[in-house]
Amino acid sequence: MTSILISVSQAELFIKKNFVAVGMPEVDAELVAKLMIQSDLAGADGHGIFRLPSYIKRIKAGGINLHPKIRFDREHGATGLLNGDNAMGHLVMAKAVEKAIEKAKEYGVCWIGSHHGNHSGAASVYVRMLAEVGLVGIYMAVGNANHMAPWGGIDLLLSTNPIAIAVPANPIVLLDIATTVAAYGKVKLAAQKGELLPDGWMIDKGGNSLTNPADAENGSLLPIGGHKGYGLALMISLLAGSLNGAAVGKDTINFNVHHDLVTNTGQALIALDPSVFGNREEFIQRVSTVVKDIKSSNKLPGVNEIRIPGEGASQLMKKRMEHGVPISKELLLALNVCAAEVGVSPINNGN
Amino acid sequence: MTSILISVSQAELFIKKNFVAVGMPEVDAELVAKLMIQSDLAGADGHGIFRLPSYIKRIKAGGINLHPKIRFDREHGATGLLNGDNAMGHLVMAKAVEKAIEKAKEYGVCWIGSHHGNHSGAASVYVRMLAEVGLVGIYMAVGNANHMAPWGGIDLLLSTNPIAIAVPANPIVLLDIATTVAAYGKVKLAAQKGELLPDGWMIDKGGNSLTNPADAENGSLLPIGGHKGYGLALMISLLAGSLNGAAVGKDTINFNVHHDLVTNTGQALIALDPSVFGNREEFIQRVSTVVKDIKSSNKLPGVNEIRIPGEGASQLMKKRMEHGVPISKELLLALNVCAAEVGVSPINNGN
Repeated sequence: MTSILISVSQAELFIKKNFVAVGMPEVDAELVAKLMIQSDLAGADGHGIFRLPSYIKRIKAGGINLHPKIRFDREHGATGLLNGDNAMGHLVMAKAVEKAIEKAKEYGVCWIGSHHGNHSGAASVYVRMLAEVGLVGIYMAVGNANHMAPWGGIDLLLSTNPIAIAVPANPIVLLDIATTVAAYGKVKLAAQKGELLPDGWMIDKGGNSLTNPADAENGSLLPIGGHKGYGLALMISLLAGSLNGAAVGKDTINFNVHHDLVTNTGQALIALDPSVFGNREEFIQRVSTVVKDIKSSNKLPGVNEIRIPGEGASQLMKKRMEHGVPISKELLLALNVCAAEVGVSPINNGN
Repeated sequence: MTSILISVSQAELFIKKNFVAVGMPEVDAELVAKLMIQSDLAGADGHGIFRLPSYIKRIKAGGINLHPKIRFDREHGATGLLNGDNAMGHLVMAKAVEKAIEKAKEYGVCWIGSHHGNHSGAASVYVRMLAEVGLVGIYMAVGNANHMAPWGGIDLLLSTNPIAIAVPANPIVLLDIATTVAAYGKVKLAAQKGELLPDGWMIDKGGNSLTNPADAENGSLLPIGGHKGYGLALMISLLAGSLNGAAVGKDTINFNVHHDLVTNTGQALIALDPSVFGNREEFIQRVSTVVKDIKSSNKLPGVNEIRIPGEGASQLMKKRMEHGVPISKELLLALNVCAAEVGVSPINNGN
C-alpha cells in the first residue's frame, strides 16, 4: 500500500492540533485547517496537508505572526488594500474573500489587493469560495520562490505566478494554472522518485533542456507559450505584487530556504457579480450550453473524454469528501514526525 | 522595394475617406481611422489598415450598422453592460474606455462588458488608452472566427481569444497575447508566402503536426501550454462572451466568410486606478525597479537583449510616428482596389 485515506474531519483535526500546539489561537487553527484541506479535496495535493511540516517549521522559526492584526490599509469604493500583518496566508485570503463578497454585492465588481501575506494553498480555493456564492472570481499571486528566468535570461527573477478564474455555473468552471509548463513541486516529486524530467519543463544556464532534477536548483522552469507565459508571469508580479507593495523579483524570499524571514507575499482578488449584466440563471444556461458543446466535440484519436477546467477537481472533491484524503507513506511519516515534535498524537496508520 | 512608408496623417485620411464614401458619418470615420492606425503604430500590422478592405466589404454587405445607438443596457455601481448595436468595434470600445475611465476614478476599479460589438483592432490599443491616463487595464475578447478545438478535441469551438494587460509605468508595460501559440494571421501569411508552418502551431484531425498552410482551414491552432492555454481561451470566452450575452462557441460567426451576418462580438474591459493602493509615483518606481532588474539579467547564449512586454511596441510607435507606417506592395494594391471601388483617390506609391 502506497497511501492511506484519512477522513476530512480527521485531517482537519490533526492539522488544527498541530497549529494549536505551536501557539496558534484555536479559531485561527480551525479555519486554516479547513482551508488547507480544500486544496487536498481539489486534488492540489502539494498545497494542502503536505505543507503542514513546513508551516510548523516557519512558525517555530518566528516567520509567521500568530497574533496578527489583519486590516485594510486602504479602502476606496470597490477596492481595498489588505495588510496581512504576516499572518498565515489562509487567514489573509479568507478576509480578502469576505470583503470581496461584500463589495461585489455593493458595486458589482471589486479588486482586493493584499500584501504581507503568506502562502495560502491552491489558488483555486479562493475563487471557488466566490463562485459558491454566485460570483465570478479571478485570483493572482506572486509565488514564494523564484524558479523562472525572464525569456532569454538566466537569472531567476520570476515565480510560477498562478492565476485562477472561476465562473459560477453547475458545476463551477474553474481554471487554476501556474504560468510555467510544470510547477516546481512536480520537479521535486521527480527528484524524490529518481525520475528524469521531460523535455520542455526546464532549461539550464546554457539554454539546453534540463532533465536531471538534481540540477534543477540552477535551472529555469519554462513559461507556457515561451515569451507569452513569461509576459503573463511578469504582469501577475506587477498586479499582485508591485501594485500592493509586496515582494517581487529580487525581493522575493525563498520560503523553502528562509523560514524566519517575512515573505511579504502579494495577492490580488477580483470578484464580479454576474447578475449586474442580466439574469443569473440565463447566464448559467449560456455557460452550460458552451460546456455541453465542448464536451460533445469529436475527439482526437486515443482521447476518451474532453475535460472542462475544474471538472476533474469537482469530481475529486465529491470522492474525497466521501472516502477521505490520500496520504502517501512518505507524507504520513513526515506528518507524524512533525506531530511528535510538537507533542500531538500521530495519525493512526490503520485510520 | 517590398513596402512603402506612408505618414500617420495620410493613412488616417485615406481610411476616413473610404469609410465616408460608403456612408459612415465623418466623425465616426475619423475616430475609427485614428484607432485603426494605433494598431499599425504598435506593430500589430494585421489589425490596422490591413483590415480596411474587409471592413468596407462588411459595410457594403450590410454587416455593420453605420448609424448605431451605442448605449449601456445596464449600469450598476462599478460595472456596465455596453450594447454596441453592431457598430464598428472601434467605436464600441472607445465608448467602453470612456466609461471605464470615469468609473475607475469614482470606484477605484470597474468592469465594462460589451456585446453586439465587432472586431476592434489590436487588444493593446484599448489598455494603452487606459494606461496613458494612469490606469491599469485588462482587456479580453472573443475572437471572430473559431480556429481552435478544445484540448483533446477536433471541432473548432474556440477562437484565439486575446488578453491584453497594461501597467502605467514609464514606458508602459503592456502584454497583448493570443491564447494560441500562433495567431491565425501568421498562418495566412505563411500561405501567402508559400512557406511551411513550424511544428507546434497547428494539428490536423488526427492529432498530427499540420505544416502545410493550405490545409489550415480544417486544422486546429494549438493553445499555449497545452491544456492551460485551452482553459484560458475558454475562460475568456465565458467572461468576455457568455457573461455579456455575446456569441461564443457554435454561435461564433466567421467574419471572414459571412460579411452580412451580425457577429455579436463580446469584449470585457477592467480598469483599476493604482493610486487607490498608495502613492502612484512610488508604484511606478517599484515597477521600474522590477523592469530594470529583469533587463539586466544575465542572458542565454546568443541572446542580445531581454525584452519587457510592450517595449518593442513602444519603440515601434515612436519610429512609425516619425517615419510612417509600412505598407507592403500587396497591401497597397488591395487598399487601392478598395479605394477605386468606392471612388476614393489611391495612395500615391511615391508618397
